[in-house]
Amino acid sequence: MPRVFSGIQPTGEPHIGNYFGAMRNYVRLGEEFGKNSIYCVVDLHAITNPAASDPRLLAQRTFEMAVANFAVGLDPSKVTFFVQSHVPEHQELSWIFTTLTPVGELERMTQYKDKSAQLESVPAGLLMYPALMAADILLYKADTVPVGEDQTQHIELTREIARKFNHAFGETFPEPRAVYNKDALRIPGVDGNGKMGKSKGETSTIGILEPLESIWQKLRVAPTDPARVRRTDPGDPEKCLIFDYHKLFSDLDTIQTVDAGCRSAGIGCIDCKKMLMTGITAHLTPIQERAETLKADPDFVRDALAQGAREARAIAQPIMAEVREKVGFLTL
Amino acid sequence: MPRVFSGIQPTGEPHIGNYFGAMRNYVRLGEEFGKNSIYCVVDLHAITNPAASDPRLLAQRTFEMAVANFAVGLDPSKVTFFVQSHVPEHQELSWIFTTLTPVGELERMTQYKDKSAQLESVPAGLLMYPALMAADILLYKADTVPVGEDQTQHIELTREIARKFNHAFGETFPEPRAVYNKDALRIPGVDGNGKMGKSKGETSTIGILEPLESIWQKLRVAPTDPARVRRTDPGDPEKCLIFDYHKLFSDLDTIQTVDAGCRSAGIGCIDCKKMLMTGITAHLTPIQERAETLKADPDFVRDALAQGAREARAIAQPIMAEVREKVGFLTL
Repeated sequence: MPRVFSGIQPTGEPHIGNYFGAMRNYVRLGEEFGKNSIYCVVDLHAITNPAASDPRLLAQRTFEMAVANFAVGLDPSKVTFFVQSHVPEHQELSWIFTTLTPVGELERMTQYKDKSAQLESVPAGLLMYPALMAADILLYKADTVPVGEDQTQHIELTREIARKFNHAFGETFPEPRAVYNKDALRIPGVDGNGKMGKSKGETSTIGILEPLESIWQKLRVAPTDPARVRRTDPGDPEKCLIFDYHKLFSDLDTIQTVDAGCRSAGIGCIDCKKMLMTGITAHLTPIQERAETLKADPDFVRDALAQGAREARAIAQPIMAEVREKVGFLTL
Repeated sequence: MPRVFSGIQPTGEPHIGNYFGAMRNYVRLGEEFGKNSIYCVVDLHAITNPAASDPRLLAQRTFEMAVANFAVGLDPSKVTFFVQSHVPEHQELSWIFTTLTPVGELERMTQYKDKSAQLESVPAGLLMYPALMAADILLYKADTVPVGEDQTQHIELTREIARKFNHAFGETFPEPRAVYNKDALRIPGVDGNGKMGKSKGETSTIGILEPLESIWQKLRVAPTDPARVRRTDPGDPEKCLIFDYHKLFSDLDTIQTVDAGCRSAGIGCIDCKKMLMTGITAHLTPIQERAETLKADPDFVRDALAQGAREARAIAQPIMAEVREKVGFLTL
């Protein structure tokens, strides 16, 4: 039975890029692998980024990320869902892995080079990030890691750390493999400036828990095919981000209608956007209702996270006991 | 009430350099500060040195270091004595500190530069060593750290990490100060090749738990003042390592006798060494007897270490709870 691990950044309320790129996949894997699908809100990773870890917001964002995942259909009673800092074995194993990982390999990580290039003073946590990530995965002997392609190098390093540990201390860890979500789309930002992303600010994103009126205001002014200057100009749907969204939210009939209507100038862009809004409303309304229910019952969410941490530790503790003994720590 | 923290490397049975340089001081501080003197066998630090952390020996060396400290008079029921890996809060706090510590400052540590210069591949644990050391100390809000002078730079970094944390998250940690043991002598190795040290091999060291016959064999062939070629040549005690040892082990009468006898050639070097052996025997015999008793009752040692870890965690856990909340982790 494979065991799936994935880390979720506590970036607050997710957008539809997160939803189609990752969250929906977690739900699907959760249905397949049950308690062996392990999802962890990675607040320990978040604090490596001083800009994104305002201590006044981190707890709230962690909570909101749990709410959002439960709202889209992840059932905490069926999967293993918890907060990283609630399972201190992550840091315990991470320290052991730093003793096995050459500084040079960490310095060569592309993500480290990119992130550190933008900083005047580089915190050591940023350099150690991949050792903690390796610990996240191997603490559960997970073999399957759904990630974005930007994480390929980190997964490769995780495999190497597993090999090194096994070589030094005897066969212990699997060599996990990355699985890339085939549905992971490069969803465009609603402002027309490239990929949807939180780092680009809220003008680029459509939040899955964003009020529908606010979403409509962004869609209303969103750029479309620049060739459609007048209502009567025909357009090319493949050059329009609204059409990209239709593919995610609308049924096949609507997609065909707007495709033909755009090419023939039979419908205007506002008509097309209104039809999209119908699809978005149908899709997000039940999610937003579940989120409201969850937010109104924070104890349910907290209890679920506490239970998740207990379940995660129940898997992690025997593995850490094995690790401690193999490394040579005195056991009492 | 000051709180003292010191880390003890699990290097196996200590030598008389360790004894006069550190262990005797721990006993004295323990008598002064009781449970607020916190001593920790740092196995998590030991594994940053691949050459010194053979997994088949580490547990045994950790155990032996506890035995040796108890044998020289450290009473586990009166101080807080435990093994670092038994208190996972050390790694937990260490991770948080890595996110506050610039890579550049860690790279500038003299000890890191010295150690890494000798290695082809430098493990990241070596670079992170001072962040773990800062966590060791601040996890107990210790303000007083008895260390060797080679640790000055690490203590300065610990103070800086404390300041940074306090500045970012509100007043939390004291800025600990190093105290250098005034008795810490540069005890020469018995082979005459500089300071006594384990890294130089057993020919340089006199183990406090070493059989007396083995100690005598080393003393017998130990170099003395090179000017004393013949028995009738007068010597200069200040040029003789045996005289250094007399100052540690012999009473004032004996010291005066060998001083005068050496200068006048009234006694030979073997006579002088025999008088030293009398002092060493008187000093080490009760220690070695206690060590034998402890080794014969490993459950006593294990129970003491388990109790020590519980006591350490009782201090550390409320401090970690404060840290987690200040950093912004979600508390349940």
